[in-house]
Amino acid sequence: MPARRALLHRVPMRHPGDTAAIEALFDAGALDPRQVVAVLGKTEGNGCVNDFTRAYAVQALSLMLGRRLGEAPEAVAARVAMVMSGGTEGGLSPHFLVLAVGEDAAPDPAGALAIGIGFTPDFAPEELGRTPQVQATATAVRAAMAGAGIADPAQVHYVQVKCPLLTSERIAAAKARGRTVATEDTYHSMGLSRGASAIGVALALGEVADVPEAAIGADWSLFSGVASTSAGVELLRNEVIVLGNSPDWAGDLCIAHAVMRDAIDLPAVHAALRGAGLRTEDGQLPPDRQDRLVAVLAKAEPSSTGLIRGRRHIMWDDSDINATRHARALVGGVIAGAVGRTDIFVSGGAEHQGPDGGGPVAVVARRG
Amino acid sequence: MPARRALLHRVPMRHPGDTAAIEALFDAGALDPRQVVAVLGKTEGNGCVNDFTRAYAVQALSLMLGRRLGEAPEAVAARVAMVMSGGTEGGLSPHFLVLAVGEDAAPDPAGALAIGIGFTPDFAPEELGRTPQVQATATAVRAAMAGAGIADPAQVHYVQVKCPLLTSERIAAAKARGRTVATEDTYHSMGLSRGASAIGVALALGEVADVPEAAIGADWSLFSGVASTSAGVELLRNEVIVLGNSPDWAGDLCIAHAVMRDAIDLPAVHAALRGAGLRTEDGQLPPDRQDRLVAVLAKAEPSSTGLIRGRRHIMWDDSDINATRHARALVGGVIAGAVGRTDIFVSGGAEHQGPDGGGPVAVVARRG
Amino acid sequence: MPARRALLHRVPMRHPGDTAAIEALFDAGALDPRQVVAVLGKTEGNGCVNDFTRAYAVQALSLMLGRRLGEAPEAVAARVAMVMSGGTEGGLSPHFLVLAVGEDAAPDPAGALAIGIGFTPDFAPEELGRTPQVQATATAVRAAMAGAGIADPAQVHYVQVKCPLLTSERIAAAKARGRTVATEDTYHSMGLSRGASAIGVALALGEVADVPEAAIGADWSLFSGVASTSAGVELLRNEVIVLGNSPDWAGDLCIAHAVMRDAIDLPAVHAALRGAGLRTEDGQLPPDRQDRLVAVLAKAEPSSTGLIRGRRHIMWDDSDINATRHARALVGGVIAGAVGRTDIFVSGGAEHQGPDGGGPVAVVARRG
Amino acid sequence: MPARRALLHRVPMRHPGDTAAIEALFDAGALDPRQVVAVLGKTEGNGCVNDFTRAYAVQALSLMLGRRLGEAPEAVAARVAMVMSGGTEGGLSPHFLVLAVGEDAAPDPAGALAIGIGFTPDFAPEELGRTPQVQATATAVRAAMAGAGIADPAQVHYVQVKCPLLTSERIAAAKARGRTVATEDTYHSMGLSRGASAIGVALALGEVADVPEAAIGADWSLFSGVASTSAGVELLRNEVIVLGNSPDWAGDLCIAHAVMRDAIDLPAVHAALRGAGLRTEDGQLPPDRQDRLVAVLAKAEPSSTGLIRGRRHIMWDDSDINATRHARALVGGVIAGAVGRTDIFVSGGAEHQGPDGGGPVAVVARRG
Repeated sequence: MPARRALLHRVPMRHPGDTAAIEALFDAGALDPRQVVAVLGKTEGNGCVNDFTRAYAVQALSLMLGRRLGEAPEAVAARVAMVMSGGTEGGLSPHFLVLAVGEDAAPDPAGALAIGIGFTPDFAPEELGRTPQVQATATAVRAAMAGAGIADPAQVHYVQVKCPLLTSERIAAAKARGRTVATEDTYHSMGLSRGASAIGVALALGEVADVPEAAIGADWSLFSGVASTSAGVELLRNEVIVLGNSPDWAGDLCIAHAVMRDAIDLPAVHAALRGAGLRTEDGQLPPDRQDRLVAVLAKAEPSSTGLIRGRRHIMWDDSDINATRHARALVGGVIAGAVGRTDIFVSGGAEHQGPDGGGPVAVVARRG
Repeated sequence: MPARRALLHRVPMRHPGDTAAIEALFDAGALDPRQVVAVLGKTEGNGCVNDFTRAYAVQALSLMLGRRLGEAPEAVAARVAMVMSGGTEGGLSPHFLVLAVGEDAAPDPAGALAIGIGFTPDFAPEELGRTPQVQATATAVRAAMAGAGIADPAQVHYVQVKCPLLTSERIAAAKARGRTVATEDTYHSMGLSRGASAIGVALALGEVADVPEAAIGADWSLFSGVASTSAGVELLRNEVIVLGNSPDWAGDLCIAHAVMRDAIDLPAVHAALRGAGLRTEDGQLPPDRQDRLVAVLAKAEPSSTGLIRGRRHIMWDDSDINATRHARALVGGVIAGAVGRTDIFVSGGAEHQGPDGGGPVAVVARRG
Repeated sequence: MPARRALLHRVPMRHPGDTAAIEALFDAGALDPRQVVAVLGKTEGNGCVNDFTRAYAVQALSLMLGRRLGEAPEAVAARVAMVMSGGTEGGLSPHFLVLAVGEDAAPDPAGALAIGIGFTPDFAPEELGRTPQVQATATAVRAAMAGAGIADPAQVHYVQVKCPLLTSERIAAAKARGRTVATEDTYHSMGLSRGASAIGVALALGEVADVPEAAIGADWSLFSGVASTSAGVELLRNEVIVLGNSPDWAGDLCIAHAVMRDAIDLPAVHAALRGAGLRTEDGQLPPDRQDRLVAVLAKAEPSSTGLIRGRRHIMWDDSDINATRHARALVGGVIAGAVGRTDIFVSGGAEHQGPDGGGPVAVVARRG
Repeated sequence: MPARRALLHRVPMRHPGDTAAIEALFDAGALDPRQVVAVLGKTEGNGCVNDFTRAYAVQALSLMLGRRLGEAPEAVAARVAMVMSGGTEGGLSPHFLVLAVGEDAAPDPAGALAIGIGFTPDFAPEELGRTPQVQATATAVRAAMAGAGIADPAQVHYVQVKCPLLTSERIAAAKARGRTVATEDTYHSMGLSRGASAIGVALALGEVADVPEAAIGADWSLFSGVASTSAGVELLRNEVIVLGNSPDWAGDLCIAHAVMRDAIDLPAVHAALRGAGLRTEDGQLPPDRQDRLVAVLAKAEPSSTGLIRGRRHIMWDDSDINATRHARALVGGVIAGAVGRTDIFVSGGAEHQGPDGGGPVAVVARRG
């Protein structure tokens, strides 16, 4: 019985518009452009409001894939999930993670990396950052799991969600219909949308029970240990990518995760590596096991207390460098120390994604 | 036979002018202001040209110590070595390291942390960044070792050097006497002075043999594995602080070091911890051994190749955040992962201090 | 009948701790340290949360004045108002404005620059950013005017106010007494305190009638055209410096002001210059009238609309450079174009100080 | 006799990928996409090494024009000169300037704005920043003038040059052929290429006589008062756009310029406005003449002396904000004060384009 096989390629980019390394995969026959279902990218912008490297990379990817597939760039962008995370502070190395689905003769009895995709319906502005977004996200996650053949929530190790935000126009539209919105601050709406989406993931996976709406963006004790959510202006619905292990899938890839309880929780990184079958020496993955490490995905956030294990950090007080940039540099350093490489997908904006100041870390590995 | 005892207190600062935690040590009787020989500080500036947190902290320390000792602030500043390193990027926590020398009944047969101080004569401008600075620094290091009773270069684990730089006035003075200087770029002179000082340390310790003048600031294969040098406009000579282990000293402190071969060399950090008798679990010093870790001192620099283990870093290309800031954040993250705390003295400007992109890391610990 | 004479010296600083140019005034006999009543400084920090150049400059000034006067630095700081404004973006040149009061044989019949000082009582935390702070500030302004012999509000052209802010401790203290505070966000409290102080000035001068408390930090149509307020953690009361013209004072200095309706309101700068008797040529004060321009003081803020005369500015969206830094650079450029020099006191944080996106501009000049 | 008519449209952009306002011109029939010969853009990046807003805007423009014209994006980019200048510091407003050539019944006897285009042959790497680049640029400028029917160099008021830079590959290729290059520092090569191009413009216009190669990037007394040059990695030749007034052209547009002798030379801005028939009131172009101001183009650079009219600026010492960003904010403020609007094309990197610290300013206006 043929089975799906998840493919994950990690390739460098020389600048945000550089898709040459992906094209090289196509040219070498290592990947068929039709197999691509998602591209995650770590681009070298500031990861904040005026980070245009994300949109630039999406435009470049859409153009390139469109040319390869004979499709309009817009059609590609509508079909292939492209999630760019800006910010390669410290030693982080700009790279793309190309997710694709191929086919194999038979499923692997031990299970293998599985990819599920899900979508919510379009949201009305008044639903963002509120219970309807939580519920719809949970439904989409369950659908993505079902589609990927993952029955056990414990086998879900990473859920990427791309979610909408409020704009002045959307707020005005809601008001014109006599509705209120969760916030009239458009920047704040990004955090609420990310937070509601993360809680939706947690709900689908049983990490939380029913959550009162007032807890969104407020009660940080509620979180998902596998969610990674990002808000973008270009969509109206949530797009969900579930990564887990499934006995229905083929291939030698697997995924594991752990939750960093704070930004310097190296033991959690070790736990995630161990979960994926990778052992360290002297704290670090040794050179001869490097080729088995396929991808690392993590979330970073400055602790809201201004402290890490009781000692002051200056992230919130630095008016020259945004706090999230400090956090990515730090978590990138901690993880790079463990894995011995720097092309790590560390993204910011971790509302309800891991505990305050910490966050999920997932590892995709090739079996030994 | 009475013996000297090295004291090292690590205390937080709430801002660069905050010396309250040091005063609390005095008030509690934990430290006598007369015992203080040096203060190292990690302040929350940008660590670059316009980082005034360093001068502010020195002014505040001088004022406070002067008040405590009944001395003029200037007199204190001339006598007590105060080395401020700006930049607490990522999770680094602003703190002071107060070095003091007390007395004990007898030396520890196993040896203990020893502090030696040395000075070069004032340099003529034309000597900076050149062989005379190298030679004089080596002589001062040897004198500091002798003063501290450290005969074996292998027992020297950290050498802090504060060195002068060229100013327009100093360059003009040299020219008026018909002399040339190593560079007429005053900013560049800082790197050359740091580099010549580091090579001087390496020479004293036998890490390098005679070094041709042209290698200063050019041949990065020549370096000291224990030097940490910083340039300041306020002095004309080199001031040297040697930290090592000596059988003549008392107390339960000891020091060890290792050389990080690149910015993510976590195994080197582990080696330094092991050298100081500290073992990690899951890559990190566990909570019950935290009180034995007294200080961590390291150097950070972006690799000149633009790569870390073959993967591109963006430190040199980021026009918003200075490259040295990225490097400190990264190395701070790697070390914080290993030691489980963030009050780590990571400083930049690592010419000839460790290999290109790497640097020394020293650990002061309390014996188990 | 002897009369007071206002002295205003503008001197450069080479760095925030450099008070040499003020000392040179003392040494040259141009100024007696005992005459100094206030020092305003434009320092080269970022003008935001982690700008330590302000405290550094105050410490250096206190030390220097203490040494000159034989007083403790703390005593000087308590007596002489020292208001440092961080941020010399664009072409702004770091400088001090030293305000002093001397004596002359007789008042100038035409009136002359007058300096008045006033203080409120210490505020309880619950009074900050609220009506009590407004009322007390108004009272202090009236007292300062009376002290300076300025009866006509129209002759007040610049009112500098230094005001307190809320800290976590102060908020807790208020709560312990069963009181609420205006905001529990300490950063926000700075804006509310500045805003309430500015409205207090407006109230004293009749620029507004009674203001409902809810308008503070909310209704930007209410503002003073002469207030410049700044919040600092080191005080509990408002300190007020009133600059105006009074027939009781002697000397050849006078002051005028205008209100910039937006950041590029060059005609308003021209109006202020004209008011002080200075005429431009080709838009700029010509070289032969430069010596008559003694000081320029202005406020800068990004317009909250994101627009300047209908065109988008990017100040609020730039996550690399704080919005207030852009605003100071811009307003500094507009004014420097008019006055032909760059040592202009442009400060940020202009709540209720001029209209949204605009601000007061005052000119102190020597009569022709 | 039919005559060419120069069209210049200034339109806002909401982000660097937003070409909607240009499309609106097409849709309204105000402009035919086939008429477009060049697009200049002021994008909201940092204008420095990692400013990807420029490439993003070019990609978006190429895509849009390609779609409108039924051409491949690459073909559009090869034909239409697209010069993006990053950096909208202070109050500068992101915008495009679309240059097009239409036709009219007869030339205007008084002369009108004329647009000339010229190209050099591709340069060998060893020619960049050296005399061959100077000479070839001069030839291309003369050709562009001839093509535009401008015989009198005094009628050339703005020359935009896009020029190549050295890359590691290009340097290696030159070396392989036994040639040296002007510099092996690729960043420095941008300045040399801009400088040689500017001197080429000056040579063509008789602003300088023959220039020794050693003066390029060294003798700042040699400059063009109308050149604006920018270096890009994507081309190997110089592309030249000449704007002047010609009796052969039709239409109501005209151009004038002046040279700012330093960054705050407002009188020079006034002179340029006057040259274009625009008079100010109270230093500023009044509202009722705003519609006659079509475009303002200027160059900004920090003075190399660290001084503006004898007063210190901090642009070179600020390690948080690049010096060129300060300079654009400042010059943008000075010019915005004069013209009463903020969509001004102020670009940095002004080697040999105006005097040290100053630069050309050109005004395109509609006749009254």
